[in-house]
Amino acid sequence: MIQGIGASAGIAIGKSFVLPSWEWELPEQRIDVADFAREFERVYEGIRTSKFEIEQMKDELREVVGPSETHIFDAHLAILDDPVFMNEIQGIISRQYKAAEVAVKEAIDHFVTMFDLLDDEYMKERALDIKDVGNRLLKHLLGVPEIKLPSNTKPFILVAKELSPSQLAHINPQNVLGIVTLAGSTTSHSAIMARALGVPLVVGVEAKLEEPIQTGQMIVLDGGDGVMYVQPEQEIVALYSAKQRQQQEAKTRLRDIVDHKSMTPDGKRLELAANISSFKELEIALSSGAHGVGLFRTEFLYMDRNRFPLEEEQFEVYRSVADKLEGKPLIIRTLDIGGDKQLDYFNIAEEDNPFLGYRAIRISLDRKDLFKVQLRAILRASHYGQVKLMYPLISSVEEVRAANAVLAEAKQELEQEGQPYNRNLQVGVMIEVPAAVIIADLLAGEVDFFSIGTNDLIQFTLAVDRMNEEISHLYEPFHPAVLRMLKLTIDAARRNGIKVGVCGELAGDVKALPIWLSLDVDELSISSHSLLQVKERLLRTRQEDSLLLLPKLLECRTSADIHELLGRFMDENDARRQSASIS
Amino acid sequence: MIQGIGASAGIAIGKSFVLPSWEWELPEQRIDVADFAREFERVYEGIRTSKFEIEQMKDELREVVGPSETHIFDAHLAILDDPVFMNEIQGIISRQYKAAEVAVKEAIDHFVTMFDLLDDEYMKERALDIKDVGNRLLKHLLGVPEIKLPSNTKPFILVAKELSPSQLAHINPQNVLGIVTLAGSTTSHSAIMARALGVPLVVGVEAKLEEPIQTGQMIVLDGGDGVMYVQPEQEIVALYSAKQRQQQEAKTRLRDIVDHKSMTPDGKRLELAANISSFKELEIALSSGAHGVGLFRTEFLYMDRNRFPLEEEQFEVYRSVADKLEGKPLIIRTLDIGGDKQLDYFNIAEEDNPFLGYRAIRISLDRKDLFKVQLRAILRASHYGQVKLMYPLISSVEEVRAANAVLAEAKQELEQEGQPYNRNLQVGVMIEVPAAVIIADLLAGEVDFFSIGTNDLIQFTLAVDRMNEEISHLYEPFHPAVLRMLKLTIDAARRNGIKVGVCGELAGDVKALPIWLSLDVDELSISSHSLLQVKERLLRTRQEDSLLLLPKLLECRTSADIHELLGRFMDENDARRQSASIS
Repeated sequence: MIQGIGASAGIAIGKSFVLPSWEWELPEQRIDVADFAREFERVYEGIRTSKFEIEQMKDELREVVGPSETHIFDAHLAILDDPVFMNEIQGIISRQYKAAEVAVKEAIDHFVTMFDLLDDEYMKERALDIKDVGNRLLKHLLGVPEIKLPSNTKPFILVAKELSPSQLAHINPQNVLGIVTLAGSTTSHSAIMARALGVPLVVGVEAKLEEPIQTGQMIVLDGGDGVMYVQPEQEIVALYSAKQRQQQEAKTRLRDIVDHKSMTPDGKRLELAANISSFKELEIALSSGAHGVGLFRTEFLYMDRNRFPLEEEQFEVYRSVADKLEGKPLIIRTLDIGGDKQLDYFNIAEEDNPFLGYRAIRISLDRKDLFKVQLRAILRASHYGQVKLMYPLISSVEEVRAANAVLAEAKQELEQEGQPYNRNLQVGVMIEVPAAVIIADLLAGEVDFFSIGTNDLIQFTLAVDRMNEEISHLYEPFHPAVLRMLKLTIDAARRNGIKVGVCGELAGDVKALPIWLSLDVDELSISSHSLLQVKERLLRTRQEDSLLLLPKLLECRTSADIHELLGRFMDENDARRQSASIS
Repeated sequence: MIQGIGASAGIAIGKSFVLPSWEWELPEQRIDVADFAREFERVYEGIRTSKFEIEQMKDELREVVGPSETHIFDAHLAILDDPVFMNEIQGIISRQYKAAEVAVKEAIDHFVTMFDLLDDEYMKERALDIKDVGNRLLKHLLGVPEIKLPSNTKPFILVAKELSPSQLAHINPQNVLGIVTLAGSTTSHSAIMARALGVPLVVGVEAKLEEPIQTGQMIVLDGGDGVMYVQPEQEIVALYSAKQRQQQEAKTRLRDIVDHKSMTPDGKRLELAANISSFKELEIALSSGAHGVGLFRTEFLYMDRNRFPLEEEQFEVYRSVADKLEGKPLIIRTLDIGGDKQLDYFNIAEEDNPFLGYRAIRISLDRKDLFKVQLRAILRASHYGQVKLMYPLISSVEEVRAANAVLAEAKQELEQEGQPYNRNLQVGVMIEVPAAVIIADLLAGEVDFFSIGTNDLIQFTLAVDRMNEEISHLYEPFHPAVLRMLKLTIDAARRNGIKVGVCGELAGDVKALPIWLSLDVDELSISSHSLLQVKERLLRTRQEDSLLLLPKLLECRTSADIHELLGRFMDENDARRQSASIS
């Protein structure tokens, strides 16, 4: 058994294919002054081809994993367009009389060394990007063919020293059962992509290997706990086959409850909606039994292009989604960029603390021209289904009023143009800034519904960036302060007679379910892949029991206490059901 | 009248001294291979001298403005130590056979161009640093003397194209009445330094000048509103002389109330303490009538050195401050680094959102070895005065308990060693994370006092980085949510019978005074330069009136409403006093 690091969950069992490393030879002879123009042109040609390839990769990848991860390649495109990079290459050609491939190689080495030396994580990541894109350019100049993975063979387990995002983009998930890399970390771009592709991945096994893996060896790997076996005994294979089968069966069991009403045994209805980012994801949501879309992130419409989408383009997408939902509710959130989400063509200055920066509704209210285009498109789509509108990152009554003023203008324009729209379009706000919780009673007077965004709310409440590994252990959803914030918000909604849902990641955590039932939330909006797990738990959790739990939860002074209470609740609930089914 | 940008407040009237620009000539002849070693040595020698000078500047500057701004020069030292910079210089000498000064000049140009081209504010700032430190090195190689400002003359107004932090560090504030720069911005390092030095500064006048300013011309400038006059008429001089005198008189009036009790006319005692960062600042605090130190920031003890301070070093400082306070209270806050405060010798990885990152108590609890050293030093100092201990950035009961466990260990050690300390040392926490407000009742059960840190609390509550210019208008201390957070905290303290103070910037804002009086805060801890202004306002504001205002404040739905209410309260209060003094 080799203990690596699990970077993408799932079990894979199969024969290995070891990706050969790439070797090359550079031309040694010097060039003439007369050759400069030709060598320059070769570099330009290589850059053009590389850019074309990268664009293609982006498109392929978007098909498979959606738009969220394709920005990785925007950094690559930016490097190829960077005049500093080109200057360095041309300088080496013209001052040192070296051939294009040598100049490219030396320029890569130069920048990689330089960025590596700077004691700065951000720069070190840029060094990796330069290496990846530089090697691509170099291959074109040398005419080295792309290393092809075997196709038309049995699906295999890919073994490589390390995999760049470029290499991963070419993988066909149908063909690759799992991946092992000798180096690598769980937070690399490649690991993120493997998770998006749903391919099991174990990284960092180099130090543990006694001898190199050969192509054709039997491999068992579990990306959940980072374990790998090379040429294991038959019992191990049997064990993991069984485990794999169990995981498969659990999936099947969940399939069986797709059409069940989402209701507790004692009759509390809790709507389970889906979070989606694209039309494509809607199909998965519907096939998971979502009762509607509780959060349509419109960012994808704005990403991966070179200008803001036109009203007509947006309208078409919103209407298609509304059509496909056939009257089920659709909550469209207005543009939520900034923070960690950027657009290529909309330059947000470098910020020291982007999470506390120029983002979401703040950008919309600053750029009312763009905002109104989106509001018009949403209003027009509201004619074709049960569309609702939601503003992100609201922190004051003033912001809601300012946004609603633009909405009123958009309505008036459509009125004058004779365009149909739903005059009673419901408007809601995300509750994700602590201020919004504290003034939830005031906000409730201005809108039709709340949706609690737990991710940001927890980050701000605890002052913890959950992406920051140094302190991610402090990102604690089951913190007494978070519980109270949730209660404050939901109580304010109840008292003011408006609907309240939850759309952050915590909504998809089965452990949190008794909290939602006890606080009497109307809707959970969840990523499609957790929806059925939550439903399965909902079908066997009584609201009455949850209500009894609430006062105890609120008495907890620490997160450990809350975890313990919720854990015990789940165990007791399971035991009760078991004894009920026996008797 | 020339309208520039006010970058440091205050009025200055006097004759100008125009700083000549720096011109140089570089040696043209190539060097020999035999000269390489000598040229390398010249560069090393220049770097050594430059570093020595920069260290000197840091020391001088620390004397004048305290430690907070001296980190500007750490970036300069880092560049001189950067192997990439040295490699580039040596490369040019040895590959292109150029003299040291030429190589340095070309290396500077290379990096400045490169960083400038990157579309990245952070990098552009580094370009400025490289230019500043590179020019220093170049001057040494060329043997160009530092341009000296006139001394032994009448104080003058300094006029320059732009001023680097290096140049500003050499200014004697006694001799320089004010500064005008043709370029520059209010957020540059130089502007920050001018404010710290207390020298009026107007920047960005270049476009407005019809002809260049000459040395010896009469100048009037007002750094408050960014206005400048060249050779103004006598009336203008008279007008600004009067304004200057008024500002002076207002200062004198405040001097008169230094020894007054800090109490409202109806007898509510509100202690006014000072925030300090060093022993030096304590004198200013005491001369402003501070009743004690409400916040002793211990960061300065850790900055500007190359290792953590020893227990003995810390103890000496804490004891000196306690001694000097002669029994007045002294609240020492444990190390609060991270966020925007870094130590040269303690590497915190680059963070995407440092305000939500690895900082303050999180570092102390992660590095208990260092934490215990500080706690031991504070405990030992507690024998010599009314010392209290305070933890920053607390967000949970667990953190308080973990910190107190280290404190208990430290006490036990001292006990065993027979070292004296105050066994009843009071322990408090900063309330600056929203979670801490929400669980203030739970925290109150663990500690002896609260101190509300309004700066961070407002940032997290509103999700606004107040340093981010793009959204700084959203940093709104008079937000209804902030008001409610303050009330929640203070009420929790009152109900649990513990003391509560306020130590953020809002404590020094006279407009907020009715809030503190109505919520019945025990202490405000303020930077020494606002202390007397707050006291002056306190002496003529009745707590009774403030109590009547509170329900109206709490009814406000928007910040504009709160501002209006507080503004009207101040006006009415002034009018009441006026009519009282007439009758």
